[in-house]
Amino acid sequence: MKINVLFSPLGADELSFAGKTTVVIDVLRASSTIVTALYNGAREVVPVATVEFAVKVSGGMFGGQTLLGGERQTKKVEGFALGNSPLEYLPEVVSGKTIIFYTTNGSKAIVKAKFSENLFVCSFLNLEAVAKHLVNLNKDFEILCAGRNNYYSMEDSVCAGKLITEITKLNDSAELSDSSKACVSLSKTFGKSTLKMLKDTEHGKILLENGFEDDLNFCSKNSSYNIIPYFSANVLKVLSNSEDVNK
Amino acid sequence: MKINVLFSPLGADELSFAGKTTVVIDVLRASSTIVTALYNGAREVVPVATVEFAVKVSGGMFGGQTLLGGERQTKKVEGFALGNSPLEYLPEVVSGKTIIFYTTNGSKAIVKAKFSENLFVCSFLNLEAVAKHLVNLNKDFEILCAGRNNYYSMEDSVCAGKLITEITKLNDSAELSDSSKACVSLSKTFGKSTLKMLKDTEHGKILLENGFEDDLNFCSKNSSYNIIPYFSANVLKVLSNSEDVNK
Repeated sequence: MKINVLFSPLGADELSFAGKTTVVIDVLRASSTIVTALYNGAREVVPVATVEFAVKVSGGMFGGQTLLGGERQTKKVEGFALGNSPLEYLPEVVSGKTIIFYTTNGSKAIVKAKFSENLFVCSFLNLEAVAKHLVNLNKDFEILCAGRNNYYSMEDSVCAGKLITEITKLNDSAELSDSSKACVSLSKTFGKSTLKMLKDTEHGKILLENGFEDDLNFCSKNSSYNIIPYFSANVLKVLSNSEDVNK
Repeated sequence: MKINVLFSPLGADELSFAGKTTVVIDVLRASSTIVTALYNGAREVVPVATVEFAVKVSGGMFGGQTLLGGERQTKKVEGFALGNSPLEYLPEVVSGKTIIFYTTNGSKAIVKAKFSENLFVCSFLNLEAVAKHLVNLNKDFEILCAGRNNYYSMEDSVCAGKLITEITKLNDSAELSDSSKACVSLSKTFGKSTLKMLKDTEHGKILLENGFEDDLNFCSKNSSYNIIPYFSANVLKVLSNSEDVNK
């Protein structure tokens, strides 16, 4: 099992993902929010690459069943029902709903990797579930970090490193690329306190300045949710055997 | 002084470098070879982005004064006088010569950053000289890692981390981005033995398989050359005050 990490979707070709297994990570906050929305009963999350497409897609669905969610440069998009804080995606808000989801980094990264044979979404919140599933799947895979505005972000690489570390505990024949080894090393150095690490990152500081400290606390919780968002037919749903996999 | 690191030139826009100070690193082997060629008396090195352009440029120069050098996927380009091993760039070969230089990663990264206000080339060989000069210059700068085939390479980020570490010893007000902090951490973890690190990287292994162990030994020597290649008017020359800077 070969594991590679891409630190940003910048310049990666959509077709390069064809036939691959890909894990998208955007700790702050898209992948944390997607995991939370699905855990709290959202029927599905439809990641989109532009605000225009979000509006277009939602227009074609039945009003009461659809919510527009996401952000542009940290702020909720005008006219959207929800922002990109996982704390907004409560059971009473999202249960049974289809979420059309646009964010500056995360949703675009998922759309970029849409030709993957298997495409999962990972955050600190569901890291252990994803690790166990990838070990059972036993295929080469690539971790696509969403990064921030197309550049490297510490929190995504530390999360990638923790995911790889969990996997190597369960499968000692995993082959790590340079970038995978770098992530494992960074997760050892910076991952002792996930919350402290998040607060020290470039993106974490911007979220703190914008009053999202509770989001950082929430996104730092390791493996509290036992679900795996899985991308198929352009929507993310809970992988049906998530629970079995993790027993 | 703000310091940022780009892990690969992939997707970076040429014009984004305009007005900036940039340091290009391609440890294996372009930046090590450029430093060696200039140290050994080459008049200048002309980095080019395509083999075709290398041939075109060399055709317009006086025969005896010009040498074509470089590689494509580790191998010397057919018809070129020199490959990309720093050990070929001996004083008796390069003294007084103009080297037209094409490589898979490094020369392309330099050409991509050509609009920089200041553009330097760094390797382990001249790391201390570059660090001292950047501290004296006291400007924000970006380190552009050439990477391998447009992706991350461990050796370039460890070299970047050592460069940043040297600078922060001399200037304690340097502000490090997420990627800069990651490089410093990686240089602490993997930089204890530069040679061992080089041998364990993806690119290092390929060079070992191709019989270039001596190159790895050579490229691992820390700060043995006291010169700084500086890019101006499309050619790299020794920065004239390199020696003063390092006294």
